[in-house]
Amino acid sequence: MKNEPTYNLLKTIDYPEDLRRLDAERLPDICDELRQDIIKELSCNPGHFAASLGTVELTVALHYVYNTPYDRIVWDVGHQAYGHKILTGRREAFFTNRKLGGIRPFPSPEESEYDTFTCGHASNSISAALGMSVAASQKGEKDRHVVAVIGDGSMSGGLAFEGLNNASTTPNNLLIILNDNEMAIDRSVGGMKQYLFNLTTSNRYNQLRFRASRILFKLGILNEERRKALIRFGNSLKSMAAQQQNIFEGMNIRYFGPIDGHDVKNLTRVLHDIKDMKGPKILHLHTTKGKGFAPAEKHATEWHAPGKFDPVTGKRFVTNTDGMPPLYQDVFGNTLVELAKANSKIVGVTPAMPSGCSMNILMSKMPKRAFDVGIAEGHAVTFSGGMAKDGLLPFCNIYSSFMQRAYDNIIHDVAIQKLNVVFCLDRAGLVGEDGPTHHGVFDMACLRPVPNLTIASPMDEHELRRLMYTAQLPDKGPFVIRYPRGRGVLVDWQCSLEEVSVGKGRKLRDGKDFAVISIGPIGNTAARAIEQAEIKTGLSIAHYDLRFLKPLDEELLHEVARKFRHIITIEDGIIKGGMGGAILEFMADNGYNPTVKRIGILDQFVEHGCVNQLYHLCSMDEEGLLKTLLKQCHIFAPCLTEIKELNI
Amino acid sequence: MKNEPTYNLLKTIDYPEDLRRLDAERLPDICDELRQDIIKELSCNPGHFAASLGTVELTVALHYVYNTPYDRIVWDVGHQAYGHKILTGRREAFFTNRKLGGIRPFPSPEESEYDTFTCGHASNSISAALGMSVAASQKGEKDRHVVAVIGDGSMSGGLAFEGLNNASTTPNNLLIILNDNEMAIDRSVGGMKQYLFNLTTSNRYNQLRFRASRILFKLGILNEERRKALIRFGNSLKSMAAQQQNIFEGMNIRYFGPIDGHDVKNLTRVLHDIKDMKGPKILHLHTTKGKGFAPAEKHATEWHAPGKFDPVTGKRFVTNTDGMPPLYQDVFGNTLVELAKANSKIVGVTPAMPSGCSMNILMSKMPKRAFDVGIAEGHAVTFSGGMAKDGLLPFCNIYSSFMQRAYDNIIHDVAIQKLNVVFCLDRAGLVGEDGPTHHGVFDMACLRPVPNLTIASPMDEHELRRLMYTAQLPDKGPFVIRYPRGRGVLVDWQCSLEEVSVGKGRKLRDGKDFAVISIGPIGNTAARAIEQAEIKTGLSIAHYDLRFLKPLDEELLHEVARKFRHIITIEDGIIKGGMGGAILEFMADNGYNPTVKRIGILDQFVEHGCVNQLYHLCSMDEEGLLKTLLKQCHIFAPCLTEIKELNI
Repeated sequence: MKNEPTYNLLKTIDYPEDLRRLDAERLPDICDELRQDIIKELSCNPGHFAASLGTVELTVALHYVYNTPYDRIVWDVGHQAYGHKILTGRREAFFTNRKLGGIRPFPSPEESEYDTFTCGHASNSISAALGMSVAASQKGEKDRHVVAVIGDGSMSGGLAFEGLNNASTTPNNLLIILNDNEMAIDRSVGGMKQYLFNLTTSNRYNQLRFRASRILFKLGILNEERRKALIRFGNSLKSMAAQQQNIFEGMNIRYFGPIDGHDVKNLTRVLHDIKDMKGPKILHLHTTKGKGFAPAEKHATEWHAPGKFDPVTGKRFVTNTDGMPPLYQDVFGNTLVELAKANSKIVGVTPAMPSGCSMNILMSKMPKRAFDVGIAEGHAVTFSGGMAKDGLLPFCNIYSSFMQRAYDNIIHDVAIQKLNVVFCLDRAGLVGEDGPTHHGVFDMACLRPVPNLTIASPMDEHELRRLMYTAQLPDKGPFVIRYPRGRGVLVDWQCSLEEVSVGKGRKLRDGKDFAVISIGPIGNTAARAIEQAEIKTGLSIAHYDLRFLKPLDEELLHEVARKFRHIITIEDGIIKGGMGGAILEFMADNGYNPTVKRIGILDQFVEHGCVNQLYHLCSMDEEGLLKTLLKQCHIFAPCLTEIKELNI
Repeated sequence: MKNEPTYNLLKTIDYPEDLRRLDAERLPDICDELRQDIIKELSCNPGHFAASLGTVELTVALHYVYNTPYDRIVWDVGHQAYGHKILTGRREAFFTNRKLGGIRPFPSPEESEYDTFTCGHASNSISAALGMSVAASQKGEKDRHVVAVIGDGSMSGGLAFEGLNNASTTPNNLLIILNDNEMAIDRSVGGMKQYLFNLTTSNRYNQLRFRASRILFKLGILNEERRKALIRFGNSLKSMAAQQQNIFEGMNIRYFGPIDGHDVKNLTRVLHDIKDMKGPKILHLHTTKGKGFAPAEKHATEWHAPGKFDPVTGKRFVTNTDGMPPLYQDVFGNTLVELAKANSKIVGVTPAMPSGCSMNILMSKMPKRAFDVGIAEGHAVTFSGGMAKDGLLPFCNIYSSFMQRAYDNIIHDVAIQKLNVVFCLDRAGLVGEDGPTHHGVFDMACLRPVPNLTIASPMDEHELRRLMYTAQLPDKGPFVIRYPRGRGVLVDWQCSLEEVSVGKGRKLRDGKDFAVISIGPIGNTAARAIEQAEIKTGLSIAHYDLRFLKPLDEELLHEVARKFRHIITIEDGIIKGGMGGAILEFMADNGYNPTVKRIGILDQFVEHGCVNQLYHLCSMDEEGLLKTLLKQCHIFAPCLTEIKELNI
């Protein structure tokens, strides 16, 4: 169902050039319509909500002042860029946002020339924009402007600081817009937040200077050129008095602000004023996440991605989940509290995802034992390493795809020292609508080569609980538990906590003709497909849940190798170097040579869509697995004539 | 040959407790002897030199004031910790520093309880120390002090900033010592350096306050308790006047300094004064890299790790390299200049390793086209991505083991967008004396699963040049070239630049009985071993250089599979998920089942020692490979009776 916006002004804007033809006086109206359009669209097609409401004025001002797409706007985390999409040729398609085949969840250069860079993971905008600014200068495109838009939450990421550190010395004319709403998904944490707050209270000076120059300009005392010169001069003066430098100025980045990010007319003027200044600049905005929609302004975390809601009353349409299996993240969150009560060494660490991974349960019950370290995955791991080194037992929860940012920390700061850190990787496997930047498909392949790690993937909630219990027993060393987004498979999830033998898999089903080895929750889909395949073929198929990618269950694999000529491996991770590869290596190392058919995510980035659709596309839903099983039945047992429905 | 220090005072210090028994007046003498001992030892047993000379006074002061090992000192990058080793039970063993079986190149908790955390990769100290400080508080060890010692170079790493950001809000009593010598290995770069410099010129205030409090104390006007209270009060006052806050103070971290890091008596007093203050603190020291050895003070980069030298004259014993093959890094550095001259899109990016990777050649010839971004691997990659997105062609050179810190940047900021960035991974394979933190053994296994990457490893200098040439041709996408530390194998390395077919390997030697497939420079060792094996067994062994790990040369592999029942794979990377695994996957996917013996680095961290020794230990030098080849000959051809020397 397509939602045609009915707003009179907005519907005249197909591209920013249409916007730029408007008189500046109309900008507040455009903002209003754009905001209403976002509210209406999101109310029936869920997505990231509150962030984009907070950047409506900024989006309009940027496209009004800058010559996009020739000028580059680099968004940091695409959550905030819905307004940008609507103004850049995707108004009519916006109702397909995040849907399979529809427009992408975050800005994507493949989709639009207005989308300048991938922006799924936080904190990369300054580095990327600096690269573009340098490219413009190297190529002699002196009139090209580059703007990075970064939130205060993303500013806690080390990458942003590295970018800032470099932007301050590499020659460039970059403008960094710091969109300060004191929020990431949850409330921002850390010293930078405090520092920015202090700036707010202390830097009235900038505002006075701006206002004074504007009044002098209006009175005709300054012309446009002189007015800019005055602003520049003020900055230089301030820099000379080093005591008054803030961190940005101290790093040779001109600082402007803070100003109200919802006053679109003033914002437009300020952007216009600083646009052509040479050298790196930072403009500090204050905005409100969820701006213009009262319930979201009040509860920004809840309204980060609220699902469907009534755009008038703000009532959220919460699905009745009675009788449904729990979310894996809640099983993690509740089990962590249970374990922490019994084991005083346990602490929890999350990089800015307390509500996303349900560590907020521990936070509310034992606030001193849970640490939200900000968007800072590397630090989360090394900090956990430090705590483990001195006797604590950290459960460090990171989304699988964000763990990629802490790969060296896992190797260098934990694995080498064999420290007792439990890594709980939420959002493993395909995650759905957030698309290629967020799928947790590399974890098994990239962690398997790292010595000293134990790597497990539970097939259901009970297994998750037992693995978490096992991981916190004495001297288990670094222990990775990866589990998926979304709901589990068991309604009655609160099993007793028992130890699992490390490196031991499970036989789920006896069989004679060939063996399926799966790891993780896709084992449930595999089990159903196997049942169907047996019915359809009359063959007898064994099914093993490997459970541990590392160490491998050698006893189990010897049994499989001795018993079966044919093996199928199934995993919800990238197929190159994954569990199937591990089994091939075991077989080769031990002189077995069964035929092995590996099923996993092929060697390409998987797009966005709902989780089930994506597994279907990857032929890894029940139907897809069954099809492959049937094909393999035919190959493994060519004499088999009973296969009637090979082409299901 | 063991070097017994003859210094009278130093030889009475086996452990810090001996040091702490001395009168403070003797500390300058200890520093002098310690410095002389380091100079003497390093002159005949090469290692990291200049950094440790710069921290002599700090090391002595720390162990004098703090109750180590109960109190924790976390060194950031172990280059600077030789004095620490000598004072903590390793004076007599110090002549074995960096040698196989000798004491480790960097502090290592496995070696000494005084070594608190792994410190091979920069910027992790604040995070690890914060973890320890939190652990002390959680466990009720209120009297334990934790100190992180970080250089200004390491401060450019995002991880350090993430740690600082978190240290400022998580309750802790951490002391961060900022050892500011304006150097990493090369000169420090970036805004933070500038900012620290500004602090130096502006914060006389702190010094005055300190001096005043000391005079009042000496005059008997203040007692010790009141003196500390005065210092604390001064800080609070300063914080209230937000305009005067520096970044650290603005983040709620108390700032002291800058003070002279070579005045051991004053340093000791200051440490004593601030030791028991609650909350996070930063002490800013100014030191000189190479302090006390004139040539090193003058040319700190050259003297970072100078090799052997005359401790009296400072004359360096430079090996005559005439007629020797070049360093791979110089082939890279010179070829880059050659390519950059012909292709104006090419730029170079290095994270603080211009002299280490020889990008200093481009820097001196085309300064505007080379970017040293500081210790900031993640930024180096994303910045390269930004430049590539707007049409430049960055050669981003990162040591293989440091690339681990940019794993997500490679995936998220480059591979997803298929950007034309050439990653040159220097120091691939075993690197020798720097040990487990620095071996470049994970690159192939962790990058192979990433879609859209081309991954190559040249067997010699000509191949390196050709691959570099190929990578910069239009639209090659992200292109990884990994090559080792040290010298190549060709004296005449300046071949003409020709395109290599992407994904095409080479047949090096025909054979009938079985096939060896190698990748990268270990192919040279393999070639010699194969020759020996043929002579010893009379078998005929084919040898292929796979050259590209990705995409695989399917034509070559089909040929091998059709022609041979037996395959041996050889790679200088970790064996799990590496090239051997890739070949097993290919064989399984294509219905072949040869026996495959994989040779590579086994699943454990490899210690330090010289490169040849380590390859010997891993059975991957010529002798080791030959042994394996001969064993396999016996397995592959059991009827073979000619093998006379199986147990060589």
